[in-house]
Order: sequence, then C-alpha cells, then structure tokens
Amino acid sequence: MTLKLYCFGESGNAYKAALPLELSGLEWEPIFVDFFNGEARSPDYIENVNGMAEVPVLIDGDIKLSQSGLIQIYIAEKSGKFGGEDADEKREVLRWILWDSSKLSGQIGMTRFLMNFLDPEKRPHEVIKFHQARLKVSYNVLNTHLTQRDWIVGRSVTNADFSCCSYLFYQEPFGFDRKDWPAIESWMDRIAALPGWKHPYDLMEPAFPRKK
Amino acid sequence: MTLKLYCFGESGNAYKAALPLELSGLEWEPIFVDFFNGEARSPDYIENVNGMAEVPVLIDGDIKLSQSGLIQIYIAEKSGKFGGEDADEKREVLRWILWDSSKLSGQIGMTRFLMNFLDPEKRPHEVIKFHQARLKVSYNVLNTHLTQRDWIVGRSVTNADFSCCSYLFYQEPFGFDRKDWPAIESWMDRIAALPGWKHPYDLMEPAFPRKK
Repeated sequence: MTLKLYCFGESGNAYKAALPLELSGLEWEPIFVDFFNGEARSPDYIENVNGMAEVPVLIDGDIKLSQSGLIQIYIAEKSGKFGGEDADEKREVLRWILWDSSKLSGQIGMTRFLMNFLDPEKRPHEVIKFHQARLKVSYNVLNTHLTQRDWIVGRSVTNADFSCCSYLFYQEPFGFDRKDWPAIESWMDRIAALPGWKHPYDLMEPAFPRKK
Repeated sequence: MTLKLYCFGESGNAYKAALPLELSGLEWEPIFVDFFNGEARSPDYIENVNGMAEVPVLIDGDIKLSQSGLIQIYIAEKSGKFGGEDADEKREVLRWILWDSSKLSGQIGMTRFLMNFLDPEKRPHEVIKFHQARLKVSYNVLNTHLTQRDWIVGRSVTNADFSCCSYLFYQEPFGFDRKDWPAIESWMDRIAALPGWKHPYDLMEPAFPRKK
C-alpha cells in the first residue's frame, strides 16, 4: 500500500521524512498541506489529521504518525534502512534526532520562517539575531562531530543525518553559510551524492515559487 | 550497579530523567553539574561526558546516554515501566517526547533561563515575549489533549507525561500559570500524587537557593 505523507516543500521537518521515504525505495506519495494559509491549524486538520497542528504526518493504512523523528524510525523498521546497525547505533541515531529537534532544526525552522515567510514589517529582529547566535553553537557541535567521520552515526547514512541536514539544504537565508563549516559542507556533499537524493522542492510541492 | 545521572536541580531536562528513575525503583544517584558556571561547556565535560555540552547524561556501566527522551526510553526498557503498553503506545509516547522537545520544554527552558538566571540587564525582552506567545499555543495543544483523558498516552502515566510536565513544576516565572489551563492543572495534580513523586529540587541539587 502506498504510504502518504502530509507535507509541503518549505517544511524541513517534512523533508526529514520525505528523504528517507524516497531513498528507502518504499512507495509513497506527498499530500500537499497549505500550511501558510492555515490548513494545519484548521479544525478539520486538527480533528482528522494531527491534533498537534503540524506537518509532517505519515499514513500507512490504519497507522497515522506525526513527528518527523518518529516517522523516520517507522520508515527504518519498515524498510530496514537508515536506523543504525545495532542497539547502540539505534540509540545514537535517536540521540541526534532529539538534539536536532531542540537545538538545530527547531530553531532554524523558526528563524527561517521569520526571515523569509513572515510579512517583512512584522519580523522580530531581536528574536532572529538571538536565535542565529544560539544556532552557531549548534553548528559548531555538529561540525566538530563530523570533523573525523563521514556520517553522524556508524559507517553509513542514517536518519540522524537526514534529521540534521534537512533545513541546511534550503536556499532561503537564515544565517547559515555552509562554507563557514567545512565538515558540515563535506557531509552535505556526501548526502547530496547519495543515489536518488533530491532537493526538498523536488520531493514536495512548495507553497511559494522556488528560490533560485 | 547504581545508575548515575549528571544533572542539576534547575534542569527540567534532567528532571525528565530523574523522575522516572526515582519512580521506577531503579537504583540511581545524581552527579551535580555546575552548569551555570560553565561545567557542561568545559573541555573536560565535552571530551569525557557529552560532546553536545548538555545535561542530563546517564551512565549505566559502559553505556553512556544523553538526551532526556533517549534516557527515558532506556529506563522504560530496563524497568519495564512508563514506556507504553504496546507498539502503538510506545510510538505515541515517543511522539509526545519529540513534540515536547521542540514545542514545549525546549522553549520553556530557554524562556525561564532568560527570565530568571540571566543577568537582569542582559534579558532580551522581545525574545521572552515572543516565546511566551508561542508557548501559549503549546499549552493549548496539551490542555486540549488532556481534557478528556487522565494521561497523555494510554491508561497510566508514561514518559510522555514526565517529559511534558517537567518544566511546569518549577516555581520560577516563565509566563505560565497552571490555573489558566484546567486540564493541565488536574493532570499535574495526578502526577504529583503518584507514590514517591518528588519536586525537582528534592531529587537533584539546585545551583541556586530554592525559591519558596
């Protein structure tokens, strides 16, 4: 049965699910959510899709899952890919998924939204600056970790990589230049070289015209 | 063997691990981390305890884990408690742990730090206000979810509850009054009535004198 993913192109959280879906070889299809016009906060979505009012949501028959990290683990169990090779690696993958959620993607997603998708007159500059400074600490943790290794966990790509890289592939500015973080840059090149890799806007329909 | 938890009283993230450790009946002891004086960012801590420069860290013999959500799952596997009754519940517990990480605790921890532990002259008021407004959306999601149920997942307390409640038990102001959220308030009363429940400052040494 074809898996369905509620998503939209601009969502790095959705990309964390869409990328391993695509690379795992599982059959899946995206269902566009008109997030910027409030669809994910609509009573219908909250009642029938996700009470947390968020994207992504994965549907597999009777199973409905939200939170990208949980969806990634489900994909790993179903496909046998990207979950880590043993119990230690599985734990280490989840450790980085959780770190990413609070310290990396969680803050990038918000900062990028404020800088690109919010009405320019409403942009809270102090908030943006504050989170850009905090994010530098996170880029540093990730860059240091990647200095002497190709992948975040173990010997091949896992969901830890798909979580942490997700927002970094977007062109819209949020205060990150991959050239400033050489180990992150090389790692992103390795990810983009995986057979079948696609940019988020090539996997999921964007709400806005794509930035060149 | 006695489990060791690197922690300090003010850390709601550490409390997420300390509370299920205490209630599970596992033997454990806290190791105080002098976080506010930079211990978690010291070269020694980063090299030997946690490269993410964070608290908590759990040590169980050769196993070393960080990220409270991962530690909670480990405690559930080791003790057989608080992890959910079946595969669906286990997934649902992780779903709420992940939601809490980005949408609830992650933002409360920062807001409470800025309002209470940062030099008053350095407090970024726009950042504090912004996150207090965002947090109201999260309190609403949690309150709505708890309106017709006693526990976040299933029929008894799980790590989903311990994650989401952690920062809410602190007295220092961060823009939350449990009286404004009746379903959250009743649920916190149920948690505090669990046999053996303790306040964070009674489980882990605080860095600052306890607020009355």
